[in-house]
Amino acid sequence: MNTPDERIPELICELCRQFYDLGWVSGTGGGISIRGEAGIYMAPSGVQKERIRPEDVFLLDGTDLSSCRVLRPAKDPSLRVSECQPLFYNAYRLRDAGAVIHNHSIHAVLAAKMAAPDGGEGVFESRDLEMHKGLRGKGCFDVVRVPVIPNTAREAQLADSLERAMNEHPDVDAVLVAGHGIYVWGRTWQQAKTQAECFDYLFKVAVYAKMAGLDAPPARS
Amino acid sequence: MNTPDERIPELICELCRQFYDLGWVSGTGGGISIRGEAGIYMAPSGVQKERIRPEDVFLLDGTDLSSCRVLRPAKDPSLRVSECQPLFYNAYRLRDAGAVIHNHSIHAVLAAKMAAPDGGEGVFESRDLEMHKGLRGKGCFDVVRVPVIPNTAREAQLADSLERAMNEHPDVDAVLVAGHGIYVWGRTWQQAKTQAECFDYLFKVAVYAKMAGLDAPPARS
Amino acid sequence: MNTPDERIPELICELCRQFYDLGWVSGTGGGISIRGEAGIYMAPSGVQKERIRPEDVFLLDGTDLSSCRVLRPAKDPSLRVSECQPLFYNAYRLRDAGAVIHNHSIHAVLAAKMAAPDGGEGVFESRDLEMHKGLRGKGCFDVVRVPVIPNTAREAQLADSLERAMNEHPDVDAVLVAGHGIYVWGRTWQQAKTQAECFDYLFKVAVYAKMAGLDAPPARS
Amino acid sequence: MNTPDERIPELICELCRQFYDLGWVSGTGGGISIRGEAGIYMAPSGVQKERIRPEDVFLLDGTDLSSCRVLRPAKDPSLRVSECQPLFYNAYRLRDAGAVIHNHSIHAVLAAKMAAPDGGEGVFESRDLEMHKGLRGKGCFDVVRVPVIPNTAREAQLADSLERAMNEHPDVDAVLVAGHGIYVWGRTWQQAKTQAECFDYLFKVAVYAKMAGLDAPPARS
Repeated sequence: MNTPDERIPELICELCRQFYDLGWVSGTGGGISIRGEAGIYMAPSGVQKERIRPEDVFLLDGTDLSSCRVLRPAKDPSLRVSECQPLFYNAYRLRDAGAVIHNHSIHAVLAAKMAAPDGGEGVFESRDLEMHKGLRGKGCFDVVRVPVIPNTAREAQLADSLERAMNEHPDVDAVLVAGHGIYVWGRTWQQAKTQAECFDYLFKVAVYAKMAGLDAPPARS
Repeated sequence: MNTPDERIPELICELCRQFYDLGWVSGTGGGISIRGEAGIYMAPSGVQKERIRPEDVFLLDGTDLSSCRVLRPAKDPSLRVSECQPLFYNAYRLRDAGAVIHNHSIHAVLAAKMAAPDGGEGVFESRDLEMHKGLRGKGCFDVVRVPVIPNTAREAQLADSLERAMNEHPDVDAVLVAGHGIYVWGRTWQQAKTQAECFDYLFKVAVYAKMAGLDAPPARS
Repeated sequence: MNTPDERIPELICELCRQFYDLGWVSGTGGGISIRGEAGIYMAPSGVQKERIRPEDVFLLDGTDLSSCRVLRPAKDPSLRVSECQPLFYNAYRLRDAGAVIHNHSIHAVLAAKMAAPDGGEGVFESRDLEMHKGLRGKGCFDVVRVPVIPNTAREAQLADSLERAMNEHPDVDAVLVAGHGIYVWGRTWQQAKTQAECFDYLFKVAVYAKMAGLDAPPARS
Repeated sequence: MNTPDERIPELICELCRQFYDLGWVSGTGGGISIRGEAGIYMAPSGVQKERIRPEDVFLLDGTDLSSCRVLRPAKDPSLRVSECQPLFYNAYRLRDAGAVIHNHSIHAVLAAKMAAPDGGEGVFESRDLEMHKGLRGKGCFDVVRVPVIPNTAREAQLADSLERAMNEHPDVDAVLVAGHGIYVWGRTWQQAKTQAECFDYLFKVAVYAKMAGLDAPPARS
């Protein structure tokens, strides 16, 4: 299950291409970070994610999670490390994550708008879906609650409210950001990706059910 | 038409990648099982279906359908056989199936919600679509009825209600599970896949027609 | 521009894979036929269109369009020629087509339902789209009218009503079939494919505009 | 970051295939032009964009932007240079662009219809989306305004109104054309593509939010 460090940069490129096909990282947004033996691997910022190559991936210090020190920069000196870096570090520090995914999925943005129409704080709720089982500690009849936090002008400014939301919702590995997207993490990159797909599925079901007028809460006994 | 046993593990991987692209097995859900000469081949549980390899596929006893004995496990000892295994066996036992597909398609989940808004039992009905012809024994003007059963906390608990629905609907090779997805089977893997695509099409037409306000039943003479 | 005969079977396979990705030929439905020097090439019936191989393609007599004589069958004797064959021949006979495409696109089915809610005859109308220019003889401000005919229990029974619709709409290279899909043709396979994509685009715009409440006809001066 | 001239024709083919998969250039519509050292590279007109080859790409004079002189035609003498050529030149002349993309995205057409329901002039507005940051000079809380101009019978006739819209909206690198699509440009092909994806995302969010009844403007403080 463990992916050796020398494979991680190529894996990040593969996953970014896959996320592009899912509509998660269009433009230059979103990305993924994976923790290896040697440190924390992170995609560069502001570039087309479906086109990055292994030598574009940064390696950051994984021992001192307050320093964010770059151990090995991308080969191309014009590249900068992902803007989400402080937010990714939240998950590494607070949740001992093995990988963090950030995406701009339209389903996430619309689900956040359903939960917080004014762009402020809120909680997205999902009920009675088998796909809950793909989420840590959840059964299909458990209610899944994903916190929504307001967006900020600069991505790094999200760090405090993201941390607060994480502390208030210890049972879920994701935070929605209004008008922006989602942060999802997991113990491993596999769990992070699985959970990212499951959350996206919950959001898509909620949005499409609303489009079809099927969103009245079921009266279960 | 018959696929030799040595080709089946790779075929299961190919089909899982195709199902992933169709949105049927996101997260780690869903899967496919095919009956060969040597027994019943089955994808592993709880892993990313678009990334499984032939050596991850299990071979199970196909002669004694009550034992579910593993003849050849996946190479990786951490893998477990699909959770749907008892449900797949229903189709092998009751319908002499050659292959069974389980997916979590959003179209299936929304169609089930249209037919059973409270998450309980129901019947999804489709009328007047040429794609009915891809379903066993159906013409385009026959009404297709797919039973919906309530979901259960554990997948294996579905076995009894699935069997009851199969017995009550002998003319259709599928059962919808509320908030969950669909089980579809066929005499061969080709028929199972064709029917899975046809059912998904019926569900998508129903959901999109409802989104567009086109779902009033036509007054045909 | 002309494709040599020896390339046509492979081209048919390529286009079928592309149509599968567009959602036009799921299940085993739909297909394409191309006229070459040696005769008329046609995909087999009732098989998964994204998996056909060049040796699965039939060659039919192109000189006597009333006989439908098979010049060279598919290699696999279990394959039958496409059920749409008489309908494809309509376009070869009446319009001197070089290629004919039949698909089951959900956009076509929903557009037909908008134009003929009762499943009977109707005319789909499109206005003010640049994509009209991809259609033979149309400008962006011309109204495009596509006839809709009722479906029949067997595909071959469509031949007469299809012919009547073709004669009544000589300015358009397509006929919609209610609950079924579309037949589109062109002088060359390139024009047939281009027109098939343009019609699908018109249908999708109409359906999505209706979903979004944007379908009120614009008051242009 | 700079792409050498000898790579540009192949890059244009790659990007056209990618745009086809995004649904931007179905039929034969849309295209891309990139400015290199030797001049301006441009895709041919009226052909299937996912199938063009490097030798189909035209090279035009980039020094005298009023002449549109062809320096090197496509190898196939039946090919003509893109019809959008005068419109592409607008962006090269007025904005010193390095690349221009034109697409027929359904999201662009529906967004234009939301902003200008009668097909006339209008302005599409987007608020409070992180993806604004992919657009030149925009923050996530800036309002993005994209001008909409009416379509014309011939594409070249758009040149004047496109120029006027460009001059009236100097802060945005795109113009929507009603019932038609969008023109987007950037300093480099990377920026042009990034911005094209970001605009498409804004349009899709607006359309899907309207479909789901989520389009009421948020009351932000």
